[in-house]
Amino acid sequence: MSLIKSIVISGATHGNEKTGVELVRKWQSYPEIFEKVCPSANVQLVLANPLAMRLNRRYVDQDLNRSFSENSLSIQGGSLCYEINRAKELNEMFGKKGECTKTDLLIDVHNTTSNMGACLILSEKNPFTTMASAEIVKEFPETRIYFQPEERLASPYFGTIAKADICLEVGPQAHGTLLASLFELTEKIVLRYLELVEDYNKGLFEKREAKLVEVFTQWKDLDYPRDASGNICAMIHPDRQGADFKELKEGDKIFKTFDGQDILYHGETVFPVFVNEAAYYEKKIAMSLTKRTMENW
Amino acid sequence: MSLIKSIVISGATHGNEKTGVELVRKWQSYPEIFEKVCPSANVQLVLANPLAMRLNRRYVDQDLNRSFSENSLSIQGGSLCYEINRAKELNEMFGKKGECTKTDLLIDVHNTTSNMGACLILSEKNPFTTMASAEIVKEFPETRIYFQPEERLASPYFGTIAKADICLEVGPQAHGTLLASLFELTEKIVLRYLELVEDYNKGLFEKREAKLVEVFTQWKDLDYPRDASGNICAMIHPDRQGADFKELKEGDKIFKTFDGQDILYHGETVFPVFVNEAAYYEKKIAMSLTKRTMENW
Repeated sequence: MSLIKSIVISGATHGNEKTGVELVRKWQSYPEIFEKVCPSANVQLVLANPLAMRLNRRYVDQDLNRSFSENSLSIQGGSLCYEINRAKELNEMFGKKGECTKTDLLIDVHNTTSNMGACLILSEKNPFTTMASAEIVKEFPETRIYFQPEERLASPYFGTIAKADICLEVGPQAHGTLLASLFELTEKIVLRYLELVEDYNKGLFEKREAKLVEVFTQWKDLDYPRDASGNICAMIHPDRQGADFKELKEGDKIFKTFDGQDILYHGETVFPVFVNEAAYYEKKIAMSLTKRTMENW
Repeated sequence: MSLIKSIVISGATHGNEKTGVELVRKWQSYPEIFEKVCPSANVQLVLANPLAMRLNRRYVDQDLNRSFSENSLSIQGGSLCYEINRAKELNEMFGKKGECTKTDLLIDVHNTTSNMGACLILSEKNPFTTMASAEIVKEFPETRIYFQPEERLASPYFGTIAKADICLEVGPQAHGTLLASLFELTEKIVLRYLELVEDYNKGLFEKREAKLVEVFTQWKDLDYPRDASGNICAMIHPDRQGADFKELKEGDKIFKTFDGQDILYHGETVFPVFVNEAAYYEKKIAMSLTKRTMENW
């Protein structure tokens, strides 16, 4: 990977995830901070879904962060769907998606109602994002690495219009609210990534020793139990609520029905994340199951 | 107050407050429970805002739970606003608002992102709701009484179309999610209220001794600090986050600006509630300030 010269930091990719909204607004009012922290790159800020943000909703017509596949971006002409148009606009501004994209690194700031701490989601393993994230998890005890491999052109995520991307998922925070503690943590992490870009551009990463890190790799999503009509009939079990990144093994309680019955997990040992994320009820995801490995990054 | 013969239990007055949604759905599938718990009254169930519920949003066009003032209900003809029409429909079904309303008691189940536990909101002090709520707070350590006096005809709240009402506000729970622990607590409290209706109808309340209870009475709402453009420029202070019903006194930290400065509270001692409720950002309410008294109920 060559030098990182152009960076985009985005908030409001989901309009009701307020940490990114207010961080971007804060930095918009004194962009000189980026020249101080990371003078070797040009940093741009964007509020990705301003209409959803004004409505305080995740999206207007469809999830913007599922609108960046090559197929979706190649739809000709204007669409009736706000997010399809907005994704194409963002792709013009910061892409275009592919080898020749204008953006070297995109940092997309999200919130989750799940107890994810500050989760660093990587869509691929490249020299900067792996090494910088290994650095971050050593420095910030609240952070963890979640590897969700994506085929970049087909991927619907905003970050994939850039050469490399980091998606920050910070929680637990109810959508539409702000927690000062998480706001400050997120700010520190984003600025630390920018300092690490500076180190990387200076060639300091080449002398760096690999670090042994815990990596949670996406395996598969798990839906809620449902009745014959397709309605959910159970909730996350109290034992599992808030237990993101904690081991889930054969026989553990995983759901509780509305009638108070425990439902047990059957299968190989996994590490759930995005447990009880509000926006994933409609996506039929009660939690995502990951496998945990130790890797030298 | 005469006997309580007709009761309405409502969920989904706000479409993304899922505890009430799923409790009402559960009870719809075996309504015989009400004959067992409270045979002296007729209990009806309603999902108050089904369209918002399907959209997983608080409301479609305007807050349904601000649409029941006498003025709003008397608007002639169909409206372009979904909730104005729906409020009139609900008023036809369960009202009409005023002395001759069909409904003796309305129990409206809500969720909040604030750390309110199971909060019993009373709009007026009448023999049943005060005595029953005094009973409930003695039995359930998670409950508190919040008295928010309303002029019934002018009041915009759903509950005020009935002769008496209790609004249950249960949290903290992110909107659009379910917590099993709060679901089960809410179920127990509603069923306990129905048992107490039965006692009341049997005349058992007349022999009852008054109980000394803690009452938090609405004093005034407090907005977030804002900049010259009207945008919020501070968050709930970490010391205050989750501290609903806890004393707030002169000099206490109350907000934290996006630049990390503490903002102190100045004024008489109060007890904030609805601290950091997601739906109240747009209503310009960072928290509601209450006064605490001990009363014999």
